[in-house]
Amino acid sequence: MTSTSIIDSALQRSRRSFLKSGLAGGAALMAGSAAARAAGDPLITEIQDWNRYPGDGVDAAPYGQPSQFEAEVVRRDVPWLTADPISSINFTPLHELDGIITPNGLCFERHHGGKAVIAPADHRIIINGMVDTPLVFTMEDLKRFPRENRIYFLECAANSGMEWRGAQLNGCQFTHGMVHCVMYTGVPLRYLLAEAGVKPGGSWLLAEGADASAMTRSIPMDKALDDCLVAFKMNGEALRPEQGYPVRLVVPGWEGNMWVKWLRRLEVGDAPWAQREETSKYTDLMPDGKARRHTFLMDVKSVITSPSPQAPVTHGKGPLVITGLAWSGGGRISRVDVTIDGGRNWRTARIDGPSLPKALHRFYLEIDWDGSEMFLQSRAIDEDGYVQPTKDALRAVRGVNSIYHNNGIQTWQVRTDGMVENVEIS
Amino acid sequence: MTSTSIIDSALQRSRRSFLKSGLAGGAALMAGSAAARAAGDPLITEIQDWNRYPGDGVDAAPYGQPSQFEAEVVRRDVPWLTADPISSINFTPLHELDGIITPNGLCFERHHGGKAVIAPADHRIIINGMVDTPLVFTMEDLKRFPRENRIYFLECAANSGMEWRGAQLNGCQFTHGMVHCVMYTGVPLRYLLAEAGVKPGGSWLLAEGADASAMTRSIPMDKALDDCLVAFKMNGEALRPEQGYPVRLVVPGWEGNMWVKWLRRLEVGDAPWAQREETSKYTDLMPDGKARRHTFLMDVKSVITSPSPQAPVTHGKGPLVITGLAWSGGGRISRVDVTIDGGRNWRTARIDGPSLPKALHRFYLEIDWDGSEMFLQSRAIDEDGYVQPTKDALRAVRGVNSIYHNNGIQTWQVRTDGMVENVEIS
Repeated sequence: MTSTSIIDSALQRSRRSFLKSGLAGGAALMAGSAAARAAGDPLITEIQDWNRYPGDGVDAAPYGQPSQFEAEVVRRDVPWLTADPISSINFTPLHELDGIITPNGLCFERHHGGKAVIAPADHRIIINGMVDTPLVFTMEDLKRFPRENRIYFLECAANSGMEWRGAQLNGCQFTHGMVHCVMYTGVPLRYLLAEAGVKPGGSWLLAEGADASAMTRSIPMDKALDDCLVAFKMNGEALRPEQGYPVRLVVPGWEGNMWVKWLRRLEVGDAPWAQREETSKYTDLMPDGKARRHTFLMDVKSVITSPSPQAPVTHGKGPLVITGLAWSGGGRISRVDVTIDGGRNWRTARIDGPSLPKALHRFYLEIDWDGSEMFLQSRAIDEDGYVQPTKDALRAVRGVNSIYHNNGIQTWQVRTDGMVENVEIS
Repeated sequence: MTSTSIIDSALQRSRRSFLKSGLAGGAALMAGSAAARAAGDPLITEIQDWNRYPGDGVDAAPYGQPSQFEAEVVRRDVPWLTADPISSINFTPLHELDGIITPNGLCFERHHGGKAVIAPADHRIIINGMVDTPLVFTMEDLKRFPRENRIYFLECAANSGMEWRGAQLNGCQFTHGMVHCVMYTGVPLRYLLAEAGVKPGGSWLLAEGADASAMTRSIPMDKALDDCLVAFKMNGEALRPEQGYPVRLVVPGWEGNMWVKWLRRLEVGDAPWAQREETSKYTDLMPDGKARRHTFLMDVKSVITSPSPQAPVTHGKGPLVITGLAWSGGGRISRVDVTIDGGRNWRTARIDGPSLPKALHRFYLEIDWDGSEMFLQSRAIDEDGYVQPTKDALRAVRGVNSIYHNNGIQTWQVRTDGMVENVEIS
């Protein structure tokens, strides 16, 4: 099937490229310790119970669950952040994840009036306002339109918001965990608008949720006609209840608050509405006391997810995988740089996996850690050339009044014992 | 922000293209019924409870679960298929899914000695045989090597196996549900082999599982060096227990049985081993009584997932979305054709979403159903030009002794009342 010489040559190539990647000393160390480990390890020399006795058969509880050994990999909240859980948040455990897909059970939650529970048969989507024909769609109607499938990140505008005034919360989950990334299936919003017929002058859209907060946001018509989806699936299955089941708006690259959950009404108008959640909230209070509004786009951003405070280095010096996520509301990520010495030297990280517009990108930098203190940072650059700024550069322009749109560079201090802390350096 | 004329023109373009897609009559019908529906619908005219009263706050059970209204969307088994659940299967509910990602909780299971339960700290991966240095890796060791993220389908060789002798089981879940598609994160197998050093002549690899069946398969070295991964994550999180937690082999495009779960040993040799699961099983019994072995590749295949027996047409005539999945172990899908009249006329379906090698592809054909009986079929073509065969063409060559590698074209009969059945036509 394949000649020995081809295989050997391929292996030699593979080995050379692996060693060349900077792991030379470390890899040798690992091989040494791995070989030594074999000699007296009862896990190797003795047959284990799971190898000796049959396990449980195909699952009687047919919707599968994570392993019992992963019980700590969960969304977590910070109780003191908000007065009541019906208008609160929990966070995606980014430090435990890899790749670019977030499993549905770990996508962060943010509610403004609790989680609406709606039977699909009882749900309606209304289109009214400046349209030729006001329409009401059932979920079944919606599923008769052509669908699209797209992988997008969703980030809350307030993600990393506590960090405006300096390093506060410890842990990548709590500082950056209001982001997730799934494949959505939905109907392009422009098809529904075309069905109703937008009247001349219809330049804004109001999206309204059916939850107790009746979450309501104004969306420019050109965005609505571009890439918005009226989505009913995430990662292949129905939307989760906390993500707007049975239907939500997908507004790619823009702040998560606009992705109205439990979507029940779309009104066409000729101006934005100035609803509560786009005036007193989700505007950016500047140093002069004025508030910037319509700051919809989520700018280019990245964070190292491991090592991080909840994912310390437990194996000592030698080969270490540094990994993280990068994303931009403007499109694809073109490059991520990583520093281990607080910005004195930068190396280009390896982006691995699909590179899709307005989706998370996974990056890696493999190093041979000498065991000394590190200050880890990542800096993303998107396809339009936008470069993730430092927190200080952001503060110089925007001050520290806002809790929104903090895409500044994160620093993790890795101590010599492998423990990691959220710090700032100048 | 955008001029009215641009918007109106975009909407007109959108509308024209939507109408041109064959939905003209149907779309008008839908608009009519949707408008009529508005008038007296209490779901529109009255405020509903979920809009009036706050819902539950952020989840106290932090690993999220599907909606209560999706309780029927689960893996299902067919009890009479096997003698005991420890060596049995359940099936992915393909008829309820969309896009190309399978949620982890719905990925089909297939066990040969039940599900091994292994704490990551107690797991070891051995490399031995024709290597310079036999090695033992812990899970922590494994995570110090460079990782890759790839979306791949996994299909059991016996998927659709009951259909060799004619249409048997009803339902896309039961006929075709031994396939799923997730993003894996893992270490390229070639890195581990390079670490151990493969000796000259090492041309085959034995992969062995730590479960009670000690599942053992021979893999050619060139495949091992090409794209195999030693994977520990699926869709971002840890592998599920039934998928080999904490670690499995990923053998892209090849039959699922080779993707050894609970991977504990890799032995390098100079010939295949002829283990039980590659001799008495997972070989293809031909009409002359001989068995073909080493039929590793999963050939080009497709199936319409909706409408299908478990997903009948409930909305009557008019716009109808026909959707399905296509895949090939050889690479990307280049085209999918769909017929509604049992093969007399074929139309090219729309492939939507990422087109990735050895991954599921999602296709759609939107039609204006006239309410008459249909015989639905899909036919996939991969990037190498391989065309999915008819079942009769397969039988002419391979007979009906085998239960493996049935990639024949599936026919669904859609009756005038919208109900769907598994049939064969000649």
